[in-house]
Amino acid sequence: MSDLLQLRELVRQFVDERDWDQFHTPKNLASALTVEAAELLEHFQWLEHGRLEELGPDKLVEVRHEMADVLVYLVRLADKLDLDLMAAVQEKMVLNRAKYPAELVRGDARKYYEYKK
Amino acid sequence: MSDLLQLRELVRQFVDERDWDQFHTPKNLASALTVEAAELLEHFQWLEHGRLEELGPDKLVEVRHEMADVLVYLVRLADKLDLDLMAAVQEKMVLNRAKYPAELVRGDARKYYEYKK
Amino acid sequence: MSDLLQLRELVRQFVDERDWDQFHTPKNLASALTVEAAELLEHFQWLEHGRLEELGPDKLVEVRHEMADVLVYLVRLADKLDLDLMAAVQEKMVLNRAKYPAELVRGDARKYYEYKK
Amino acid sequence: MSDLLQLRELVRQFVDERDWDQFHTPKNLASALTVEAAELLEHFQWLEHGRLEELGPDKLVEVRHEMADVLVYLVRLADKLDLDLMAAVQEKMVLNRAKYPAELVRGDARKYYEYKK
Repeated sequence: MSDLLQLRELVRQFVDERDWDQFHTPKNLASALTVEAAELLEHFQWLEHGRLEELGPDKLVEVRHEMADVLVYLVRLADKLDLDLMAAVQEKMVLNRAKYPAELVRGDARKYYEYKK
Repeated sequence: MSDLLQLRELVRQFVDERDWDQFHTPKNLASALTVEAAELLEHFQWLEHGRLEELGPDKLVEVRHEMADVLVYLVRLADKLDLDLMAAVQEKMVLNRAKYPAELVRGDARKYYEYKK
Repeated sequence: MSDLLQLRELVRQFVDERDWDQFHTPKNLASALTVEAAELLEHFQWLEHGRLEELGPDKLVEVRHEMADVLVYLVRLADKLDLDLMAAVQEKMVLNRAKYPAELVRGDARKYYEYKK
Repeated sequence: MSDLLQLRELVRQFVDERDWDQFHTPKNLASALTVEAAELLEHFQWLEHGRLEELGPDKLVEVRHEMADVLVYLVRLADKLDLDLMAAVQEKMVLNRAKYPAELVRGDARKYYEYKK
């Protein structure tokens, strides 16, 4: 079984044991995912450059846990929406390649619509 | 190769072709991840119940794309921090089981520290 | 002196006493603002309807504090960008009135670009 | 009338003309506020230092508009929760002064609970 399907099962079991499915509307899960992403960001927000070396080992453990929470909610949301995350990324990367042709955007961090200006 | 490692390679190649690694400090990636999570949330924010049926097929495609973006940035951040996402979730789920014992929290959505009150 | 200018002075003094201006780049402040907004959202995320009555008095105090944090960072960011927040809202509301004509959007929560479809 | 009360009236009128109060549960407003904060952050996310000079005049106009949106939702949420934002900030700043004594935290960006370690 693939990683993402294995995670889906792990999360399903955790939720079912706690009877938490009732709280897991897609809206609530999208909200929880955003909150976890922001908790992850919080560890970086005052760092001057935001590099790994500035974090320190204790913070890195916390960052790891916040990233796990993000993935848990993402996998759960995909489950509730009956989406295949792996296929979604593959599809999106095709679109990204079209939006950001390598020769046009090399070394440039602007959004695709800013090139049209 | 596992899903998550496959995605890591896909993203690495995309970034390298565009010389975008220079923008990918962990701080910037955590920020981009939060922004994508919020864009996902935006599709749900005015829905009354926030269920799948209220979204409609066009919005569902957009939701799918935003979820892909979240996963791309998460996988990229894990790569830059040299973390194993799969191991991180497995470790975090052990902690979650300890924090939220099924018999104590069944059907209850409070945070773990609220039970102590 | 207006409310917002009074807050600006209050925050300036607090920051200067702590020599924290060095951390207050616009980017870091935008990040801190987003983190505080997400902390606010966290109090609502599992509520069924998300109404005031579901919060309870303890949570309402916490919500009040998170809202204060959001305003503090917003006022600080405006100060660092040398923007007049009051003028910004008045200007934006004129744009919103043009984007969302009352007779067209009454009782409808879609984004302005969805009407064109 | 103070700035914040004036804004409250401006937003109330805008919402009433559009019959949008039905969408404005505190939960939905907290969500919309977070989404606007993230849209603000997006303008800064790939900047190297995140300073004003790196933004450019066009982006600054967009930043100004996003900040206006944040304030509009904050004022609206305060209205729906029947909170006085000005009093909330004054109260929170007293707590912040106790949590972060100037002589202890000068030039240090850690969170208050990290000092205890």
